[in-house]
Amino acid sequence: MTNAPTGLPFDDIRNLLRDLPGPDAGAAESCRAREAQLTKPPGALGRLEKISEWLAAWQASYPPKAERVVVAVFAGNHGVVAQGVAAYPQAVTKQMVANFQADGAAVNQICKTFGLGLKVFELALEIPTKDITQAAALEEAECAATMAYGMEATEGCDLLCIGEMGIGNTTIAAAISHALFGGTPEDWVGPGTGVDAEGLKRKADAVRRAVDLHKAHLGDPLEVLRRLGGREIAAMTGAILAARLQRIPVLIDGYVATAAAAVLHAMRPDALDHCMAAHRSAEPAHQRLLARIGKEPLLDLGMRLGEGSGAAMAAGIVKAAADLHNNMATFQSAGVSNKEA
Amino acid sequence: MTNAPTGLPFDDIRNLLRDLPGPDAGAAESCRAREAQLTKPPGALGRLEKISEWLAAWQASYPPKAERVVVAVFAGNHGVVAQGVAAYPQAVTKQMVANFQADGAAVNQICKTFGLGLKVFELALEIPTKDITQAAALEEAECAATMAYGMEATEGCDLLCIGEMGIGNTTIAAAISHALFGGTPEDWVGPGTGVDAEGLKRKADAVRRAVDLHKAHLGDPLEVLRRLGGREIAAMTGAILAARLQRIPVLIDGYVATAAAAVLHAMRPDALDHCMAAHRSAEPAHQRLLARIGKEPLLDLGMRLGEGSGAAMAAGIVKAAADLHNNMATFQSAGVSNKEA
Repeated sequence: MTNAPTGLPFDDIRNLLRDLPGPDAGAAESCRAREAQLTKPPGALGRLEKISEWLAAWQASYPPKAERVVVAVFAGNHGVVAQGVAAYPQAVTKQMVANFQADGAAVNQICKTFGLGLKVFELALEIPTKDITQAAALEEAECAATMAYGMEATEGCDLLCIGEMGIGNTTIAAAISHALFGGTPEDWVGPGTGVDAEGLKRKADAVRRAVDLHKAHLGDPLEVLRRLGGREIAAMTGAILAARLQRIPVLIDGYVATAAAAVLHAMRPDALDHCMAAHRSAEPAHQRLLARIGKEPLLDLGMRLGEGSGAAMAAGIVKAAADLHNNMATFQSAGVSNKEA
Repeated sequence: MTNAPTGLPFDDIRNLLRDLPGPDAGAAESCRAREAQLTKPPGALGRLEKISEWLAAWQASYPPKAERVVVAVFAGNHGVVAQGVAAYPQAVTKQMVANFQADGAAVNQICKTFGLGLKVFELALEIPTKDITQAAALEEAECAATMAYGMEATEGCDLLCIGEMGIGNTTIAAAISHALFGGTPEDWVGPGTGVDAEGLKRKADAVRRAVDLHKAHLGDPLEVLRRLGGREIAAMTGAILAARLQRIPVLIDGYVATAAAAVLHAMRPDALDHCMAAHRSAEPAHQRLLARIGKEPLLDLGMRLGEGSGAAMAAGIVKAAADLHNNMATFQSAGVSNKEA
């Protein structure tokens, strides 16, 4: 975001999407060449080998790096909680931000275990977005500015983990997913942090009414984002886009983060090629959404916490993959006989 | 193994199996009580919550610990390689042991990434076991002594990862699995380190002939182990048993390590309750074997390397689970409103 904005804010975003860098074939080839010499049968590290190649290809440099890993957690509040869609009071968003800052949340512990950095982005928590069953969540300028703010998350890292905190935001993710991919509201809602059967009905009903209210405008994914989204969603969308432009691979956390990513996918199907789905959430719609954007998650641990916790767990795997690629001996250096020997 | 052996060696092993400690209900309850107070929706960490409870229950102490984690890699050589069942020459077993000692193998890098200790147990590599298509692999005294040697792996750790290295030992794993669980030899053989279609036929044929030769004695799982097994297999079986007796939870690596564990399962179906399957190997028979012993693996990364690499990857997840349980804030300490607030 070094250029001054020109024209309408969303036009700037559209312009950024027009010219996305692709994977670096040379870096990927360097990876494959070394991988073939490492002291193991070809392919025996399975997906870990693909991960180191993915890192190098999207970092456009060799060797692959996962040393400065940042977990970026975006927090926002949502007017739609007025519809009784959440199991916890809205005050919890702010309280959990304080918990992140005091090192007490789940994601803090995972970051310490794996040596990851944590950045928390608090997005005007005292001003929830408008209730999407009544109005557009955000104005265009506000949505674009929030995306631009999210773009700052990429600073100083070689791998970015994207997560969120926001009471009510699985309803937001469901509304975005329903708007982008159709189906029924029930396909896209789940228990979230733990609503009961009545709460689940209220979630589906809120999604139905929101998508119905805005239906004339939902052919444009950026309109889906501003009308049905929220600040942390827009910021995550911006962060994922900025990472692509700055050649930083991304680990996407759970359902809500994937919904933010799906906006880019709807704009351009290859826009998420630099991203890996970190894990399969226990929130049932997450698997459906992953299938729509063509991602196979790395982990399947039944997690459904958000706050970047699944992405941080996956970052531990990615760090191991990079260490394996970079530090294993070769058949020649170790004096190990190869298959043909 | 502090008592002097009495009677036949295998009788000592059978005696140890008779009186296995179970999970500690108090430690498990302490885990669940704290887990309910941590700043997250109940159950939102999915399998990670179960892992910390599993650690505490089998360590029989609270809090759960994953600080002194040891990856024990057992290496052995096998006469059955004379049947043309392996893609690499037998010398590679010894060369890879040197590679472990020089810090060059895959498992070394994973240990460094996650802060795990590595112990390599070299088991008379210059004297391969007898070719199982021609004779019993081991004498009873030798098999029991090797199990006892494996029992030393538990020293000074709070979590034990079990792995192996041995050219030809996926054929050994297939023979043990076929003997214990029936089916056809083809059900239990796979490409291993990378044999071609002809090699795969030779593996199935070797398994068929070995099981046929020893069939009169295969009702006893310890006879399966000594006749069809190998030194690293027997040592792993001993290590897993010793861990149970000493209240150390175990992560079992891939197909070959699971076959060693299956011997205990055949002796007593609850003998592996202190064990978790670390990962699902790409070796196709591994999933079949996991199903027979009732284990759902933690990771599914398409790995098929052995040498404890999958168990070491899983140990990173287990360390995170313990850190989450032990270090997260509670709703009360963090001032976060709970669901009922």
